Amino acid sequence: MNIIVQKYGGTSMADAKCVKNVAEKVVRTKRKGNKVVVVVSAPAGMTDELVKRAREVTEKPSGRELDMILATGEQISISLLAMAIKEMGEDAISFTSTQVGIITDDNHNKAKIESINTEKINGALDDGKVVIIAGFQGVTRDFEITTLGRGGSDTSAVAIGVALKAKEVEIYTDVDGVYTADPRIVPGAHKMSKISFDEMLEMAGSGAKVLHLRSVELAAKNHMPIHLRSSFTDTIGTYVVEEDKDMEQVLVRGVAHTTNNAKITMASVPHTSQNIAYIFDEIAKNHINVDVITQNYVNKNSLTISFTVSEDEYDAALALTQKIGEKVQAKSVFGNSEVAKVCIIGVGMKSTPGVASRVFKCLADQDVEIDMVSTSDINISCIIKQSDYQRAVLAIHTEFNL
Amino acid sequence: MNIIVQKYGGTSMADAKCVKNVAEKVVRTKRKGNKVVVVVSAPAGMTDELVKRAREVTEKPSGRELDMILATGEQISISLLAMAIKEMGEDAISFTSTQVGIITDDNHNKAKIESINTEKINGALDDGKVVIIAGFQGVTRDFEITTLGRGGSDTSAVAIGVALKAKEVEIYTDVDGVYTADPRIVPGAHKMSKISFDEMLEMAGSGAKVLHLRSVELAAKNHMPIHLRSSFTDTIGTYVVEEDKDMEQVLVRGVAHTTNNAKITMASVPHTSQNIAYIFDEIAKNHINVDVITQNYVNKNSLTISFTVSEDEYDAALALTQKIGEKVQAKSVFGNSEVAKVCIIGVGMKSTPGVASRVFKCLADQDVEIDMVSTSDINISCIIKQSDYQRAVLAIHTEFNL
Repeated sequence: MNIIVQKYGGTSMADAKCVKNVAEKVVRTKRKGNKVVVVVSAPAGMTDELVKRAREVTEKPSGRELDMILATGEQISISLLAMAIKEMGEDAISFTSTQVGIITDDNHNKAKIESINTEKINGALDDGKVVIIAGFQGVTRDFEITTLGRGGSDTSAVAIGVALKAKEVEIYTDVDGVYTADPRIVPGAHKMSKISFDEMLEMAGSGAKVLHLRSVELAAKNHMPIHLRSSFTDTIGTYVVEEDKDMEQVLVRGVAHTTNNAKITMASVPHTSQNIAYIFDEIAKNHINVDVITQNYVNKNSLTISFTVSEDEYDAALALTQKIGEKVQAKSVFGNSEVAKVCIIGVGMKSTPGVASRVFKCLADQDVEIDMVSTSDINISCIIKQSDYQRAVLAIHTEFNL
Repeated sequence: MNIIVQKYGGTSMADAKCVKNVAEKVVRTKRKGNKVVVVVSAPAGMTDELVKRAREVTEKPSGRELDMILATGEQISISLLAMAIKEMGEDAISFTSTQVGIITDDNHNKAKIESINTEKINGALDDGKVVIIAGFQGVTRDFEITTLGRGGSDTSAVAIGVALKAKEVEIYTDVDGVYTADPRIVPGAHKMSKISFDEMLEMAGSGAKVLHLRSVELAAKNHMPIHLRSSFTDTIGTYVVEEDKDMEQVLVRGVAHTTNNAKITMASVPHTSQNIAYIFDEIAKNHINVDVITQNYVNKNSLTISFTVSEDEYDAALALTQKIGEKVQAKSVFGNSEVAKVCIIGVGMKSTPGVASRVFKCLADQDVEIDMVSTSDINISCIIKQSDYQRAVLAIHTEFNL
């Protein structure tokens, strides 16, 4: 009998009606002859509400105590879903991460799963029960409650799927799959039926918010197929799977974009071996995440460095970079918060030269100026003016017949 | 260093302001040189809210899943209180019952504590931390989450106090102690400074809702002093302690009353040895709680039985008793939901004859008719007309100079 792991997010657990809807889907999957394990998030809004309660008491809640309060959200969800499934005549049992043994390290608020004890889960499955497990949370070997950070429930679901050797992990969400581009910008964008793990990683890292990066990494590493689909319809979604021969025949799988970027430039930095390392070391020490980096020589002795950061870190990053600029005697430091990133992604690029030049030509035809470029073998990321991004995405979508 | 266990109920944890108020009390106790363990209930209203969520999903939630959802309320409280105490500069750590090891049997919704592991608590106390433990809940040896039922947090606090050999258990509530009578009825009622365990048991069983019966039983059995006091003031409350010589010098400690009583009478039941056992067996089988029972012979061959039940079980109890009445060929069955119970309590009665007659005379002087009487060596309970109860309580309070 196949084991299917299903994961439902907060919007799917928002109220009694939603919970019953999820219960129906679960029961249907069970009655098709599968063993079903369900991983759920806290009801929509509850995590924010709990954080708010904590902040009313203290500005800086301790990581441990924050995990203690946050973990209650999923505990409420698992209990309600178990009740709803029993109400429909199937047996079900809910488990916290402590009860199952989802062992993590002790990094509160961003713990990593180390191992999962499958004994209790398999025992309940063998008894014919639907097993419902709290996502997003774990427990250390000392029984400390931890949480996994953003996207944690997706990661829980994949990790549980891997541990149980499930046939696949179904991730139910409020979209019905991964699209070739944002349908709000490209009316002709369509849902992909398949995407490779590597492509999904690039998409997830480039603005397609449907799946969290960590869960895709984990699935890729363990060859665990993910079926991303809508919790509000029964249509097939997008399968995230191992790359196969067919996939390479498609040159570009999709176009992703983000607009919450800002660019910072440090012009004419004296070129010493220490300088560049020093600059990015200082930025990292201040916990600012740098995305795309480019550097060009101005002349033999100096270079210009540009990098992008997320828009909400822009002010802090600019102020910091100005300080660093003085230190390394850069000629000037300036920034621009009105940039966007457009990413062209596809495993087919690996074996086909000339994709980048087609991208550049296509953007040039649209008078879209490319500010920075960064490439990997399956991803071309272009930083452009924010006002250009819709034109750029549309043009590329058309150019590659997506 | 003394260990003090403090218990705060839901109204003390209702919002951030309340939580900070509790934190201040805890920190003050700690800074007086005590080791402090705090047991808390769910924020006021939260348990009802969680029950409501469950009932929206199913009419009859399973006991296990109900405990799963209910246990989250206290987990929220412990986390918030730990944060608030840390914010004030003292170290604190919160524990669920699973983390500490508050082991119960597996009777969901009404579990009994079997043992408490003190290792983790003592370790944290030795590290100078305030230890905060979720009340009302426990865990079975199989890591199943249980709850203790009504008044559970008081019971948790006393059990933890006993396990830790605490100096005393302070129960903070919204009244400032146990009164000689309900102050809303008897303006001259005053707060007792001391009351014996036995007297408190009788008071708690007779309508004084300040402490739950099970917690007093547990404290009595283990000689653990309880200090019942207000969470909104700093005044000394009432000590519930071992009976001592001084106590017997007071004839009557207090007068308690309840008005949510109803009386059922089964008149002229043929007197066979089976009948009486059969009647109360049937009532018990239908889960109706009987309080005071009296029976009188009508003649050699038949007797009249009266008993009281709580008002909300009156309709069901009356219908049931009418059925039983037909079966045992009682002459008639009738009821009265307009009765009250007034209880006169004091360990001094044990050694002083004539208290009952003083009670009867005092009530007769007020034209209060006594419908039923039941006595123990420290308690005289009178069932009277509901409209008479205020006059009765006031008269007895005066008669015995309380």
